[in-house]
Amino acid sequence: MAGTKTARGKLPDSAPLGPAIILVHPQLGENIGMCARAMLNCAVTELRLVKPRDGWPNDAATAAASGAVSILENAKLFETTTEAVADLEFILATTARERGMVKDIFTAEAGAKIIRQKNAGQTQKCGILFGPERTGLENDDVALADAILNIPLNPSFSSLNLAQAVLLTCYAWLSADNPFSAGEAVPSLGDTAPATKEEIENLMKHMEDELETGGFFRSPEQRPTILRNIRNFFFRSGMTAQDVRTMHGIFACMTGKRGRKKEG
Amino acid sequence: MAGTKTARGKLPDSAPLGPAIILVHPQLGENIGMCARAMLNCAVTELRLVKPRDGWPNDAATAAASGAVSILENAKLFETTTEAVADLEFILATTARERGMVKDIFTAEAGAKIIRQKNAGQTQKCGILFGPERTGLENDDVALADAILNIPLNPSFSSLNLAQAVLLTCYAWLSADNPFSAGEAVPSLGDTAPATKEEIENLMKHMEDELETGGFFRSPEQRPTILRNIRNFFFRSGMTAQDVRTMHGIFACMTGKRGRKKEG
Repeated sequence: MAGTKTARGKLPDSAPLGPAIILVHPQLGENIGMCARAMLNCAVTELRLVKPRDGWPNDAATAAASGAVSILENAKLFETTTEAVADLEFILATTARERGMVKDIFTAEAGAKIIRQKNAGQTQKCGILFGPERTGLENDDVALADAILNIPLNPSFSSLNLAQAVLLTCYAWLSADNPFSAGEAVPSLGDTAPATKEEIENLMKHMEDELETGGFFRSPEQRPTILRNIRNFFFRSGMTAQDVRTMHGIFACMTGKRGRKKEG
Repeated sequence: MAGTKTARGKLPDSAPLGPAIILVHPQLGENIGMCARAMLNCAVTELRLVKPRDGWPNDAATAAASGAVSILENAKLFETTTEAVADLEFILATTARERGMVKDIFTAEAGAKIIRQKNAGQTQKCGILFGPERTGLENDDVALADAILNIPLNPSFSSLNLAQAVLLTCYAWLSADNPFSAGEAVPSLGDTAPATKEEIENLMKHMEDELETGGFFRSPEQRPTILRNIRNFFFRSGMTAQDVRTMHGIFACMTGKRGRKKEG
């Protein structure tokens, strides 16, 4: 876990060990910075660089990291991909192209699950290789990997920006067991409680009385159907207690029990 | 193995209708271009722009799109968010901040499933709102949405680049399996179609006019907040077109434009 202390200081102690992100011969400093930002967004903190084209450190990287500077400061520099993966135990190589190599091919999600499993005991160290922007990984680099990671995209437009490939991969890792996700859907009620059915029913009564007075119901036969449809809407609409009070106010205003008075 | 199903060799001819991506007041052309690229990576093709800061078309956008020019050429331009969502029937607003508004909050994955369900019959049109780079969506824009979409990230570093937020959202949509093929339940709308946002907006106008006439707004300061809360309720309430017609009738009755006449 060397080198990750700074960035991890902000994360929960129980945050699991993410994969090392290994950028092989990255070209633009800006892209390295954006990769760092994407990593930290997903709580992945270990960056390794194999011979960045424009040297290291790189001001453009710092500028593009939007605050994820701890990732860049702790990045480890290597001369070759072989050295960069030397202490790791399971490697995935990202590539969009068929390499004619005998290797398992995982989606980002499937690859993320494997990494979670392998790291569950915090014993195994995993890494994900990303090639240079223009050409992608060389076959010699892919050969160092245990398996290939392929992000399934629109086949007629599948070329991803480097930082975006890193983002999707890291996000898949985070999502595989996301401690920050509250699950599928969480209703937010703001400061106010949901209305009780009684409150909604009282609102219905208020409305019904006013509609009666106003001659809304042309025929007695239509009346139950119309009221049922209106009730159906209000009861399924997810009104809060505040919404009910507001609607009372709106009805009162419209029927002249408030505001209109001053005209009389 | 989740995700492997989507590793299809190419998109089927019947590729489902993706959500409209709506960028509200985007600042940098470069970011708009990168959004277009991320969209096309995920086979999402409909881009809508609300008053881009630097005008439109924008050379920086074209340069950054890396070939996804068709998305930019077909982008639709709008003056207001209200106009941009007028023909849509289900809207998600992306925001990282708590808004104190009563709305469901979905993860990108849960939101993607909902959109798949709603679009399964190719009848309903969905959209996802993204705010300006620096500030995110304004509360008035969020109020137009049916629910909030929140991407669960490292809470101590959750600020995403605009194009990366679009990428994660569109990728979640691409990755979501069509629930129709899995035989999942779909919401039943009875005999009537969901209201369009324009229909609901017209209802809001009707009500606003009547409240103005009736002296509902005691102080000009309260007015925008009150209206936003009412709008928030109507826009998330799941109204059908029939519900909207009924509410128009209720308002007309209450304000004496119908029925009351016979009293005079």
